[in-house]
Amino acid sequence: MSVGTWKSISERKVAERDAKLPSEWRISADKLPPASVRDVTAFARESGLFTSRELEITEAFASDIVSRIAEGQWSSVEVTEAFCKRAVIAQQLLNCLSEPNFNAALARAKELDSYLAEHGKPFGPLHGLPISLKDQFRVKGLDATMGYAGQAFQPSTEESTLVQLLYEAGAVIHTKTNVPTTLMAGETVNNVFGRTVNPHNRENIPGGSSGGESALISFHGSPLGVGTDIGGSIRSPASFTGLWALRPSIGRVPYRGANNSFLGQEAIQSTAGPLCNSPADVRLFMQGLLSTQPWLHDPGCLPIPWRSEAEKLPEKLCFAVATGDDVADSLPPLRRAVALTREALERAGHTVIEWQWADRQCARARDIVIKMWSADGGEDVRRQLEVTGETLPEEIVVNPNGTPQTVFETWQNQYAAQDFKAEFLAQWQATATVTGTGRPIDGLIMPCTPFPAKPHGGRYPWFYTSLVPLLDVSSGVFPVTRVDQQLDVPRADYEPFGEVDKRVHDSYAGPEKYWNAPVGLQLIGRRLEEEKIVGMLTEIEKVFKAADVHP
Amino acid sequence: MSVGTWKSISERKVAERDAKLPSEWRISADKLPPASVRDVTAFARESGLFTSRELEITEAFASDIVSRIAEGQWSSVEVTEAFCKRAVIAQQLLNCLSEPNFNAALARAKELDSYLAEHGKPFGPLHGLPISLKDQFRVKGLDATMGYAGQAFQPSTEESTLVQLLYEAGAVIHTKTNVPTTLMAGETVNNVFGRTVNPHNRENIPGGSSGGESALISFHGSPLGVGTDIGGSIRSPASFTGLWALRPSIGRVPYRGANNSFLGQEAIQSTAGPLCNSPADVRLFMQGLLSTQPWLHDPGCLPIPWRSEAEKLPEKLCFAVATGDDVADSLPPLRRAVALTREALERAGHTVIEWQWADRQCARARDIVIKMWSADGGEDVRRQLEVTGETLPEEIVVNPNGTPQTVFETWQNQYAAQDFKAEFLAQWQATATVTGTGRPIDGLIMPCTPFPAKPHGGRYPWFYTSLVPLLDVSSGVFPVTRVDQQLDVPRADYEPFGEVDKRVHDSYAGPEKYWNAPVGLQLIGRRLEEEKIVGMLTEIEKVFKAADVHP
Repeated sequence: MSVGTWKSISERKVAERDAKLPSEWRISADKLPPASVRDVTAFARESGLFTSRELEITEAFASDIVSRIAEGQWSSVEVTEAFCKRAVIAQQLLNCLSEPNFNAALARAKELDSYLAEHGKPFGPLHGLPISLKDQFRVKGLDATMGYAGQAFQPSTEESTLVQLLYEAGAVIHTKTNVPTTLMAGETVNNVFGRTVNPHNRENIPGGSSGGESALISFHGSPLGVGTDIGGSIRSPASFTGLWALRPSIGRVPYRGANNSFLGQEAIQSTAGPLCNSPADVRLFMQGLLSTQPWLHDPGCLPIPWRSEAEKLPEKLCFAVATGDDVADSLPPLRRAVALTREALERAGHTVIEWQWADRQCARARDIVIKMWSADGGEDVRRQLEVTGETLPEEIVVNPNGTPQTVFETWQNQYAAQDFKAEFLAQWQATATVTGTGRPIDGLIMPCTPFPAKPHGGRYPWFYTSLVPLLDVSSGVFPVTRVDQQLDVPRADYEPFGEVDKRVHDSYAGPEKYWNAPVGLQLIGRRLEEEKIVGMLTEIEKVFKAADVHP
Repeated sequence: MSVGTWKSISERKVAERDAKLPSEWRISADKLPPASVRDVTAFARESGLFTSRELEITEAFASDIVSRIAEGQWSSVEVTEAFCKRAVIAQQLLNCLSEPNFNAALARAKELDSYLAEHGKPFGPLHGLPISLKDQFRVKGLDATMGYAGQAFQPSTEESTLVQLLYEAGAVIHTKTNVPTTLMAGETVNNVFGRTVNPHNRENIPGGSSGGESALISFHGSPLGVGTDIGGSIRSPASFTGLWALRPSIGRVPYRGANNSFLGQEAIQSTAGPLCNSPADVRLFMQGLLSTQPWLHDPGCLPIPWRSEAEKLPEKLCFAVATGDDVADSLPPLRRAVALTREALERAGHTVIEWQWADRQCARARDIVIKMWSADGGEDVRRQLEVTGETLPEEIVVNPNGTPQTVFETWQNQYAAQDFKAEFLAQWQATATVTGTGRPIDGLIMPCTPFPAKPHGGRYPWFYTSLVPLLDVSSGVFPVTRVDQQLDVPRADYEPFGEVDKRVHDSYAGPEKYWNAPVGLQLIGRRLEEEKIVGMLTEIEKVFKAADVHP
């Protein structure tokens, strides 16, 4: 098809979406902040468009929302309406929505209110909680284009298992959010809906591929959303927008029936997890979802309920920290975030040691991962692009015209991955001799990317988030600080240790381009230690409060 | 290399193995039963070669052996020696050993005896238990040829994780056992060690690929052994020799560092599990092994300890049964075994229903599985064969000169597998409406193959064991009966429902060719329900005793 075709598809899709934004929630021209206003996080509060009750609702934690509704203080309808309204404002400032679901959400909220009134108890553990979903999850009647024009106007006839189970747990799905085409990018841009921006600095990226989620949630247009992550797509967006998040191991959160790139590729797997505003909200989501026993519905899920006892931690923990890896160190704001975290943990009595990378460990990991992502030579993506003849935005890291590997080569790479995992596990175990706790380290803390939320366009020079999916370990994200124009000066005498490190270092003229960016870090645990990750995030939240560390 | 090369390698390997069989345990020419003696299971008892204490030891259950050693009634050395001796006799009658490990085993047993004497308690939960291993596991100093001449004389320098952990649990590894080349066969034959025969009828197969194990254990040359199963390789051999067995889901028993075909192939995975003489022995192995926390050593293992509480069952169970699948029904001895099982379960108060296959379900499963096994077009096997120029025995089901699939095609097949698994899970769940227990069925009972242990040569016309690895569900095997020359007559008026079914049916002129064959069945559970499988096997053992059902 011609370029005209996918451009016209985009126009029709955008018109369809915009028609779902109620006119009473449109920002009038005189109130609309000009493009030069970078930080729009205070807009909702300052615009006068919201009642104080609407502000209170939309700025509440998910856990509090669920309690307030259960106690009858707020109705599900008013909560849903408040978030739909704030999501509409977010859309006008950030372009973060793909498929609004407001009418269905309000109808659902009404049902939930009736249920509560009739039965005197909530329908489920997530009763009345509005949840936003990354575009790839299927909601009946809505598209799941993943940014492909060629997948537009094919409304889902069945729901993803996650959606079914969230409904079963009492949640309300109020919108789906924007993604980069293919999902394989650190920025959120596609030919259908365009580009999503970061509410803390609209000149910068909200991260990707769950960047519609991170933009919407950090604007409080959603109290909690579900992203997915095969190489950092939950963690980078969360770290760029001041959110808490969980990237679980394979098998905890159902993925069945979601759209995806590389469907059937299983060498390295994307997993779904929450982005939100607190560790308690991560727990709420996981515990609520797992109470529905996803393994009875999705054969990819493991029969492991939420193990609350595994959240309880020994009094004294030992963390390893790293400011970067063996390919590139991180830039000053990230290094400062690591130092702040270290200091706060040590002040609370925990031990912190330096993580020692094995020889070329992360470079080797990346080689393995890149081979997994590109094993088909781009055939899957090429077939999608050919539907309309659209081309990929430059930010997308897939080469649709690559050279496919042979099946035997993929087996050799997968075998190399097995060795790599065993090496990492042995290395983790070996830390028991230096932690002083008698155990190996409890977690590894490091940046997700060498840089904070960066200006739009181009690709990441390097990132630290492909290790976790390769190892299939559990990991979380926590917010630490914000780029500081005084403190985050370039390192004067730094000698880069390699070509990528030099590129990263040279890219940093100072903090100005990263103005106002929140800075988060990732916490890496063992495989299937989601409960312990939540326990450790809760502890980090506590020690940060004690040390006054916050974005 | 020339044919001469691999033939001479075989001669040297056989000579090396035979040199490890102590001369005092050789059967003299006058005592050696001629080939016409089909059943040699009574040989040890009748030959006069064993003391009564040696007979008592070698015919004891693994669980009793461990208790007796722990209580000081038997020494680890005398137990090990008794099993080494009986394994040597087994070798002479059955050709089931690949790599004897007698000297190391006796040295290890001596250490264990000293430990017990010194500490007054066992070294671990498997203290002193001799265990045999399928050839592919690596034991220092021994080959792991998998039947390839090209892999001979390359002694392992490192141990498989399973071996390390069995040692940690106190076990003694007294021998490794024969396999078919590539492991991809239902019979146990290769160019290096030749063919293994069934002790119940030496004209017939012991099954494969864990056929060295099944022959040795059913001859009581080992109280318990570890096999592996990617398509029936634990279950068929166990069902052909009257053993109990467990084929766990992926992630319970460590596989790291074992030799294998298709290394790095992960679409459908082989898993390791025990073959032995009772459900209690299955539990002993699993509980003892998992007490070493394999997930801290093998990244492929899940952090799930042995959950004893999951062995406890509701009083009333509901099983589904099937005598065959949608491609072929089983032959009279198997159909009788299903009927006997059904009757015994019903008599004990359990419910039994007929399993209903979905449309072409098993035919579709086989298509998916065959594509997974052959995705590389045989390149892995071809490379191994090319080392010496050897050719595959006719029994091996791999085509080393096939057409490789593209990577994209393998993804499509893996995606089809995901759909298949979801369909099966939904079908299992849906049985809740007909079981009468309020739950879905607890297990599905059916044959492993349409026939009992059959004469040597050729391939299986059909088998029922590829479904379990495709679904990655847990499964067990239990012995039921023995081919009966009076009862197991051909079905006179049977109308085959398809080509394969006709071939299976036509192959059965009557029970004579299957003389004296034990007949076992498989019990299929859910994913990662190994504990419940052991609980159900224990219940089956109990109801069989009550109903006097046994081989």
